[in-house]
Amino acid sequence: MAKDNKKMVDAITSMDEDFAKWYTDICKKAELVEYTSVKGCMVIRPYGYAIWENIQRILDGMFKATGHENVCMPMFIPESLLQKEKDHVEGFAPEVAWVTHGGNEKLEDRLCVRPTSETLFCEHYSNIVHSYRDLPKLYNQWVSVVRWEKTTRPFLRSREFLWQEGHTIHATAEEAIEETERMLNVYATFCEECLAMPVIKGKKTESDKFAGAVSTYAIEALMHDGQALQAGTSHYFGDGFAKAFDIMYTDKDNKKVYPHQTSWGVTTRLIGAVIMTHGDNNGLVLPPAVAPIQTVIIPVQQHKEGVLEKANEIKERLVKAGVRVKLDDSDNTPGWKFAEYEMKGVPVRIEIGPKDIEQNQCVIVTRHNREKFFVSLDNLEKEVDEKLTAVRDGLYANALANREKRTYSCKTMDEITEALEKNGNGFVKAMWCGDEACEDKVKEVTGVGSRCIPFDQEQISDVCVCCGKPAKQMVYWGRAY
Amino acid sequence: MAKDNKKMVDAITSMDEDFAKWYTDICKKAELVEYTSVKGCMVIRPYGYAIWENIQRILDGMFKATGHENVCMPMFIPESLLQKEKDHVEGFAPEVAWVTHGGNEKLEDRLCVRPTSETLFCEHYSNIVHSYRDLPKLYNQWVSVVRWEKTTRPFLRSREFLWQEGHTIHATAEEAIEETERMLNVYATFCEECLAMPVIKGKKTESDKFAGAVSTYAIEALMHDGQALQAGTSHYFGDGFAKAFDIMYTDKDNKKVYPHQTSWGVTTRLIGAVIMTHGDNNGLVLPPAVAPIQTVIIPVQQHKEGVLEKANEIKERLVKAGVRVKLDDSDNTPGWKFAEYEMKGVPVRIEIGPKDIEQNQCVIVTRHNREKFFVSLDNLEKEVDEKLTAVRDGLYANALANREKRTYSCKTMDEITEALEKNGNGFVKAMWCGDEACEDKVKEVTGVGSRCIPFDQEQISDVCVCCGKPAKQMVYWGRAY
Repeated sequence: MAKDNKKMVDAITSMDEDFAKWYTDICKKAELVEYTSVKGCMVIRPYGYAIWENIQRILDGMFKATGHENVCMPMFIPESLLQKEKDHVEGFAPEVAWVTHGGNEKLEDRLCVRPTSETLFCEHYSNIVHSYRDLPKLYNQWVSVVRWEKTTRPFLRSREFLWQEGHTIHATAEEAIEETERMLNVYATFCEECLAMPVIKGKKTESDKFAGAVSTYAIEALMHDGQALQAGTSHYFGDGFAKAFDIMYTDKDNKKVYPHQTSWGVTTRLIGAVIMTHGDNNGLVLPPAVAPIQTVIIPVQQHKEGVLEKANEIKERLVKAGVRVKLDDSDNTPGWKFAEYEMKGVPVRIEIGPKDIEQNQCVIVTRHNREKFFVSLDNLEKEVDEKLTAVRDGLYANALANREKRTYSCKTMDEITEALEKNGNGFVKAMWCGDEACEDKVKEVTGVGSRCIPFDQEQISDVCVCCGKPAKQMVYWGRAY
Repeated sequence: MAKDNKKMVDAITSMDEDFAKWYTDICKKAELVEYTSVKGCMVIRPYGYAIWENIQRILDGMFKATGHENVCMPMFIPESLLQKEKDHVEGFAPEVAWVTHGGNEKLEDRLCVRPTSETLFCEHYSNIVHSYRDLPKLYNQWVSVVRWEKTTRPFLRSREFLWQEGHTIHATAEEAIEETERMLNVYATFCEECLAMPVIKGKKTESDKFAGAVSTYAIEALMHDGQALQAGTSHYFGDGFAKAFDIMYTDKDNKKVYPHQTSWGVTTRLIGAVIMTHGDNNGLVLPPAVAPIQTVIIPVQQHKEGVLEKANEIKERLVKAGVRVKLDDSDNTPGWKFAEYEMKGVPVRIEIGPKDIEQNQCVIVTRHNREKFFVSLDNLEKEVDEKLTAVRDGLYANALANREKRTYSCKTMDEITEALEKNGNGFVKAMWCGDEACEDKVKEVTGVGSRCIPFDQEQISDVCVCCGKPAKQMVYWGRAY
């Protein structure tokens, strides 16, 4: 048993030794993805895709509860359409895939595979929005998009990735801004409650906003290694796209005016965030809300009379209680199974053998801290439910502790360099004058870029960390994925 | 009221006048789709997409109940990979979209946007299937695919369409054939029970099978105008793809052997099938299982005291009973609303006004036959449930009656021509010797092609309808979408 266990665990690189290798090892060994001959594109395998399905199901419910409807736009954008909004095309054109031929025929207007769908939504709005009665339109779509990245990593950066893109159009700027904030809050709630991942909510600096946006809001999370990860974005467009695409509506006073737009998205990157926030040297650790298997039952001495019967009975009880449960009655040893489901990050493990049955109990082990509990079968459903909650809470607490440990308040550039050298990567909280030159210089000198201007401001000092002039706001800085 | 009503209805072309125009009118007026500047691609609008979401949810449950797991393959296939299976590439290469540039860089190996994903699944199998222990793999994915069609029509034929593609790999031919049949039966059950659309199950002739398949099974439905529509296909590949992609596994006797494969799919075409099977001159008629709104509540004299309160109370009761219900309390007239939700094909309408409330009743109207029922509010949930079942059963019975009326048993080519001329398009049942020349000639002379060789055979005659030689089997023939 110990030997098998060791063999499985040996197969992953330690995260302290090589975090990047540890990450890709988990992606492969937990059977989340597999590489393909299409450079920068991957197969999302059943176990990885099931995580995405859970993310989709929960978020889709939250989108619908806030009044959004799903639609589906074409995957192609004619070059002429992409070019209508100047900033947008500049931002995206260099990194799109171009379709030049349909069958054997050369296309007159090249088509790009959507890198994002603002232009398609705008064209659609111009067809269907005419009066204030037609507003707002609150749309979303679950699709994949393509960006021709040079360096790729599973989930974090790939040429094709899955995402949802919300697109809305409103009568007023106020309504659109409110929507932008609402959806950022939906993302934050989802990340904190369902992914057990604390996030910082804030605004991107001018240099970092989405191509074509007036302002971009983001949620930023800190990974186990102290690098930041942008987990979701929400953009306010003002009426810039409406003007570029000639979208106008007749308001209540019978005047023709421009509507205001937003878009917002999260991607399969969230799976990468979950891996790097909660994973450990035994493999993946999944928050229960998105775990394909929430509880695995592993029979001990399963060939003894009554063991499999009891294991099945337990399984049926948990299924009935709404738990995603798996009973592994395969021929592998219990030790092999322990290691396998630890690798796969199953939050709760139940062990049951002849001795347990005799005592009307089972053993419950929580994945994130490997704590062991002897539990009466009489209270099984309640105990499992409590343990699943405990895993979520424990994961959140650990992630928050890591972020707090790795957040450094700095008043000078030297303090930044020192903090990072001494404590390793993390979030740096420091004041900024608002000048792009200072933003660039901080990055150049210390290596950390601006992550966001957080909604929750603190007064670390009165002056800019870089130039010493009066500071406008506090910024979170960090190295990012 | 009558005027509003008339106005809405006038907007659709009558199906007897111009069936094709009636069809596209419904697609637009029921707000299922909207055209785009991307030729042959469409926007699926919220109401249309919600139908697809219901189809997805039900089918996905049926796939998972039969042991299948969802995955996600890349949307691109390198040209070199597509070319590995000879028949397959011949069938698909002429109609794919080619990506030749990523950003500003020209690709060495062109990529096609997947027209179907056998080649990607095969590449993946070759990476993960090594031993009999790895088999079977039962996969499915919900994605969109692209085929560069010349003439396109919403849902029926478009350059990009949404679908699911199941892909499975098995140790033996028997298992794979069993899977092919199992999934055809899943499709048939879904179409008959959930879409209220009777289908013929059968095998495609050699000339009509999928590029690369040993045999293709299909379900064929008959539309209201007597044209046939292929509603789903299931393919048995034998070991042809395995040989082309060098997929081998070690069997229990430690020998290296080739596995056997299948694939199967249905598309957004099913929405077109629903429109053309059940729709009428007042618009769409939706089977309850996939209707985004199963019941609409329309208050009458809604400004009178208590009407909206009662309407809301009814709504809450139905929500609780699991009905997808909408209360339309907008300022439009009841007449306008009646026409609107008839156009949108909502299966059951509830009208409630002051007089109904006084008598503790409401009016229920079933969309497909416009029958009117006065129903006590005490039995509301039960009555609505029964009416929804009645709509499904009524739709199925009507569709079946239309198919039976339009199915002609013919012994000679002249009989075929005569039947079609006299009764209009429909299914022709006629015997066939199995010779492709006869198949072609039937089509050339009578205009109807082979749809399938049905599993349920009848002996219409002893000889081929075309050449008079001994017949091998009965074939369904018809004009097809």
